[in-house]
Amino acid sequence: MPSISNKGHKMPQSPIRKLVPYAEKAVKEGKNVYYLNIGQPDIKTPEVALNAIKNSTIDILAYSRSEGSETYRKKIANYYSKNNIQIKHNDIIVTTGGSEALLFAFGSIMDSGDEVIIPEPFYANYNGFSIASGVNVVPVISKIENNFALPPIEDFEKLITPKTKAILICNPGNPTGYLYSKEEIKKLAALVKKHDLFLIADEVYREFAYDGISHYSILEEPGLEDYAIVIDSVSKRYSMCGARIGYLVSKNTAIVSTALKFAQARLSPPTLAQIASEAALDTPQSYFTEVIEEYVDRRNTLISELEKIEGVKVAKPNGAFYCIAELPVKNSDDFAQWLLESFSYENETVMVAPAAGFYSSPNMGLNQIRIAYVLKEESLKKAVTIIREALKVYNN
Amino acid sequence: MPSISNKGHKMPQSPIRKLVPYAEKAVKEGKNVYYLNIGQPDIKTPEVALNAIKNSTIDILAYSRSEGSETYRKKIANYYSKNNIQIKHNDIIVTTGGSEALLFAFGSIMDSGDEVIIPEPFYANYNGFSIASGVNVVPVISKIENNFALPPIEDFEKLITPKTKAILICNPGNPTGYLYSKEEIKKLAALVKKHDLFLIADEVYREFAYDGISHYSILEEPGLEDYAIVIDSVSKRYSMCGARIGYLVSKNTAIVSTALKFAQARLSPPTLAQIASEAALDTPQSYFTEVIEEYVDRRNTLISELEKIEGVKVAKPNGAFYCIAELPVKNSDDFAQWLLESFSYENETVMVAPAAGFYSSPNMGLNQIRIAYVLKEESLKKAVTIIREALKVYNN
Ligand SMILES: Cc1ncc(COP(=O)(O)O)c(C=O)c1O
Ligand SMILES: Cc1ncc(COP(=O)(O)O)c(C=O)c1O
Repeated sequence: MPSISNKGHKMPQSPIRKLVPYAEKAVKEGKNVYYLNIGQPDIKTPEVALNAIKNSTIDILAYSRSEGSETYRKKIANYYSKNNIQIKHNDIIVTTGGSEALLFAFGSIMDSGDEVIIPEPFYANYNGFSIASGVNVVPVISKIENNFALPPIEDFEKLITPKTKAILICNPGNPTGYLYSKEEIKKLAALVKKHDLFLIADEVYREFAYDGISHYSILEEPGLEDYAIVIDSVSKRYSMCGARIGYLVSKNTAIVSTALKFAQARLSPPTLAQIASEAALDTPQSYFTEVIEEYVDRRNTLISELEKIEGVKVAKPNGAFYCIAELPVKNSDDFAQWLLESFSYENETVMVAPAAGFYSSPNMGLNQIRIAYVLKEESLKKAVTIIREALKVYNN
Repeated sequence: MPSISNKGHKMPQSPIRKLVPYAEKAVKEGKNVYYLNIGQPDIKTPEVALNAIKNSTIDILAYSRSEGSETYRKKIANYYSKNNIQIKHNDIIVTTGGSEALLFAFGSIMDSGDEVIIPEPFYANYNGFSIASGVNVVPVISKIENNFALPPIEDFEKLITPKTKAILICNPGNPTGYLYSKEEIKKLAALVKKHDLFLIADEVYREFAYDGISHYSILEEPGLEDYAIVIDSVSKRYSMCGARIGYLVSKNTAIVSTALKFAQARLSPPTLAQIASEAALDTPQSYFTEVIEEYVDRRNTLISELEKIEGVKVAKPNGAFYCIAELPVKNSDDFAQWLLESFSYENETVMVAPAAGFYSSPNMGLNQIRIAYVLKEESLKKAVTIIREALKVYNN
């Protein structure tokens, strides 16, 4: 029997997958489970997007252009220009989710054995895309003590080798919720220019910036045109994760024309989802105002409830809908499993994401968990109560 | 300015892309262009598929399971069992088109520098997926003289090295239209077992088998369970290329669980398209009977008209909707461009795909073109007339 590839062996399993059978068992046993582990918002998709599909008169569901339809790309460019970002529709490749944009970016700039520096904790699937592309992730540690702010620029610089091709940041961050300041972006910009590296910014959560702080995109930074590659997505912005539409944006024409070759090989992004995503751009501003208010309320509740628990340390996020909490436990992997397998409070329990899976360095984040606040405030409160009660039992 | 990757440099441009500007110019000049170059059928998508989306009551367009929804995979397994193929739903990973299934298959079994043997001419995007995966294509030549039948098994055997991991066939073939016989599949089966290689069969055109010859899938071959990986797709079967739904099928559980890790990294196949594709499985048999009749009529007309032209040699395809013709020209690339740029007959011209792009060996297929019969018979007749008249002028 022929054997699978080394790549295949190395591809990580999602850090949450291991817990799924335990969650299923808990549900079977009649427990109510609060899922704090997922990145799937509970917010409704804008009606304008769903209606566009219902009203479509397509009779042959044909391939669309590999780079995405021209009308859609023009409307995206217009969206960016309203957000202080001046790009042309030809700077955009529409992809099958931000996920595919990451894959195209990696493939366009890196070869087997090349290195990408990423502040950790980071979105776990960066590992999968790196392995699929034969690329090595070099982590630089950011700390809960300062809410996972940008690590000192010297820490990045120390890690640069002749193999380094890019720095990848997620802004605002999953799993940290950290929103980089303009100054931090400028520091990174100077660094990549000095060392002739690409700067990839995963900005899929760009709309989710709170507390009056506005998101500063790497596409706004003057002089970074040749270095900046942005990953974007409709998944979270319009709560339409299942559409599978994202985009790669760069003013560097070599990058765009190279990414286009990857796009041509897979023919086309999904046609129906593009129709929905184009219509989604007409979502009224009130939708976002409400959504942002909702997330801010949830975050405030979540953080203040968590802070009431003795021994719990919480990072204060200004963006996205995740936060990382440090718990008074040795191993959050074990704790997360125990919560599902052996604990319940008023017949309810919670599923959390152990944070070790978001670190690439060994033995990091062992006592941390990621909580996604994609549930209503009432549920979040109950979930934190369960964690509080669970810690009392677990630590005895 | 940082440079793009070697991979990026090597990624091929589609062989047709170069001609697109000439086609656009021809249209601008008022010429009517018959597009014989594309793989996008003109057949209507089954209504049952489109209606399923219109009638969907989804209000949050959420991620679906990475491996595809369970109900859909069960229905696919049922489709296969009606086609003599006994598999379980857990043997299936739903992908974003057959394209992504190819990428997952390559990633799951091959590492950088590994080799895959492919009979040429072959679907040009196999090159792109190989380069993206760091894999080398080793071509084995099939010949127009015998309609591109399987090359002698010794020709394959000669090319096997310690780096060889798989043989990839397309059945029926794009661009050849060749439908492999049971005997040919058995020969390949014996070879891969002998040398411990995987056999990947791209069976996306499996329903398009003509002249009473039935398609023999590698999944039907006894004893091949651990070696066989099938690539499938709804794109052509239901004329829903824009859905972007395909699947990888294997009874080798190591392959499926590895492909699943690639699938998890990109989260989910398109949700709406999965709803449409699941409904498409209820397409009445009469739809296929009509479509097959239509393609057979077109093929017969196309071949007989082409054979009337002096100096033209045509392969006789039993499947798919492509055929390769050898023309009395030195360079079909030049001829194809000239057709668009400098020729018209009754103010009409044609766009064809030069076949060199379907060969990996240099200087092969230089006088061949691929014609897709995705136009109505009347148009095909006119298109062949144009080619006939064009050859008269071109060769003077
Ligand atoms: C940081 C980040 N980037 C990219 C993605 C990929 O999302 P999608 O492929 O749905 O656009 C996600 C999804 O959770 C994410 O959290
Ligand atoms: C032989 C072959 N395989 C795979 C594909 C990919 O199709 P899709 O990704 O639309 O399923 C095509 C499309 O033309 C094809 O001709």
